[in-house]
Amino acid sequence: MQLAEIQEEFRVRQSSFEAAYPDLLASSSLYRTPPGFRDAILYALHAGGKRVRPVLLLETASLCGIDQRKAMYMALGLELLHTYSLVHDDLPAMDNDDLRRGKPTTHKVYGDDIGILAGDALQTLAFEMFARAGVHSNTLLFFAESAGPCGMVGGQYLDMKGGAMLRDIQDRKTGKLIESSLALAYIEIDSPKKDRVARWGRLLGLLFQITDDILDASGTAEELGKTPGKDARDQKATWVTQWGAAKTRRKAESIVRRLSKAAVSIFSGSAFLQSLPAFIYYRRQ
Amino acid sequence: MQLAEIQEEFRVRQSSFEAAYPDLLASSSLYRTPPGFRDAILYALHAGGKRVRPVLLLETASLCGIDQRKAMYMALGLELLHTYSLVHDDLPAMDNDDLRRGKPTTHKVYGDDIGILAGDALQTLAFEMFARAGVHSNTLLFFAESAGPCGMVGGQYLDMKGGAMLRDIQDRKTGKLIESSLALAYIEIDSPKKDRVARWGRLLGLLFQITDDILDASGTAEELGKTPGKDARDQKATWVTQWGAAKTRRKAESIVRRLSKAAVSIFSGSAFLQSLPAFIYYRRQ
Repeated sequence: MQLAEIQEEFRVRQSSFEAAYPDLLASSSLYRTPPGFRDAILYALHAGGKRVRPVLLLETASLCGIDQRKAMYMALGLELLHTYSLVHDDLPAMDNDDLRRGKPTTHKVYGDDIGILAGDALQTLAFEMFARAGVHSNTLLFFAESAGPCGMVGGQYLDMKGGAMLRDIQDRKTGKLIESSLALAYIEIDSPKKDRVARWGRLLGLLFQITDDILDASGTAEELGKTPGKDARDQKATWVTQWGAAKTRRKAESIVRRLSKAAVSIFSGSAFLQSLPAFIYYRRQ
Repeated sequence: MQLAEIQEEFRVRQSSFEAAYPDLLASSSLYRTPPGFRDAILYALHAGGKRVRPVLLLETASLCGIDQRKAMYMALGLELLHTYSLVHDDLPAMDNDDLRRGKPTTHKVYGDDIGILAGDALQTLAFEMFARAGVHSNTLLFFAESAGPCGMVGGQYLDMKGGAMLRDIQDRKTGKLIESSLALAYIEIDSPKKDRVARWGRLLGLLFQITDDILDASGTAEELGKTPGKDARDQKATWVTQWGAAKTRRKAESIVRRLSKAAVSIFSGSAFLQSLPAFIYYRRQ
């Protein structure tokens, strides 16, 4: 698949998520929520973003033959969980970011207290969506562990404390949820492929992070949707600060090749997933 | 049942929870967590407290004939969720409390960033425990809605923003989780009693809050496990500031009578639950 073609395929899946999720939210407990609080929660969720996790979930769920409404609830759950993590990451006690995806962060608009509570509520809503999807307990368990202290929020802890290996931080902080986005559908149908898919997903998560690091070091605010060069100013360890730009690119390109090759057999039914690693890496190089 | 007797019954159930939950945690994802982070999470959980929610869940689960290991996972899930809400409530951007149950609050010991993350992780672990319990989707949904933006965290929002009715704040902030503690077992077995139990639980939650308000206005730090008189200093609306001490006591006593009467038919198999409202109110009057 050509890059323009997969970009279009990505957009189609993104749009189908954007079109469908407001209805699911409208029948959730969010619409029995104090209106000012609902506004803060929706502000964070509507701020945009690439909807990568929902797109991955919807694609794999379709390969696994999962009912579309159920898949959409799971996709929304993933996006809500991802959004909670961004809202809390941006708080003054954490990364202290004023901009996210080119807009003022939730706590800048609604205050630090509501930023904390909106993040909390986004996490609870994520699990509400998995309840509404009616997933099996094993699926729920995998999702909870991916999000929890040995997964995403544990990665955030390591990132805050410093001193941990970059790879360990990122495998947890970014990798586990990307892994979930791909593996949950296979876990839900108890597919023998589920472990291979999960490993592929972790490596894809690493590729995401490496690509982000390259962009942070070289991109503009408009391209990034956040303040560029922030990692360097914060003296944050990234792949680029650790390896330099040239080696980071070589590593990324080698991961793209490994993932693309493995995808041919793992995702034989999806040209989209086979082309995705290249798309992620080359989208703005 | 005499107060001394029910106090003893309460202690027995409390102890069985205290004895059982560390094993459940040890087989959870918490033990694949960065150790420093695990410490912060366990610090909050081990800080004690009355374990009211687990005790209520275990008692109702036993009336409903639910397997004890499953019930223990649900009980732990409730306590983890309650603990997350306390950790976040105490943060500087929220109630800014230095003491909780007589000990320094989590963020005072580990820093504001880790306070936020430990609370986040406690919430995720709560849902992990419900996954491990293998509950039905309806049970999970009720739990998530009780905890979410139309429930507990929505009540916290109303409390922060001010201007809402005290009853509305407390029904959400305290009531919903107490309601859950009692109703979840009945929902899990799809009992025709589940709605009556839920209503009884909401009213019991109100009684808890009223009793806490009375204690805050009259108790000592040792009795409360937190700084007394704080509500008044913070000019926080409470039942005592709203009604005065005498009327608040009369209201509480009327609720105790209503709950005790209703419990005779709802919980005909449990002398413990029938005596609980009186125990809650009279424990330190």
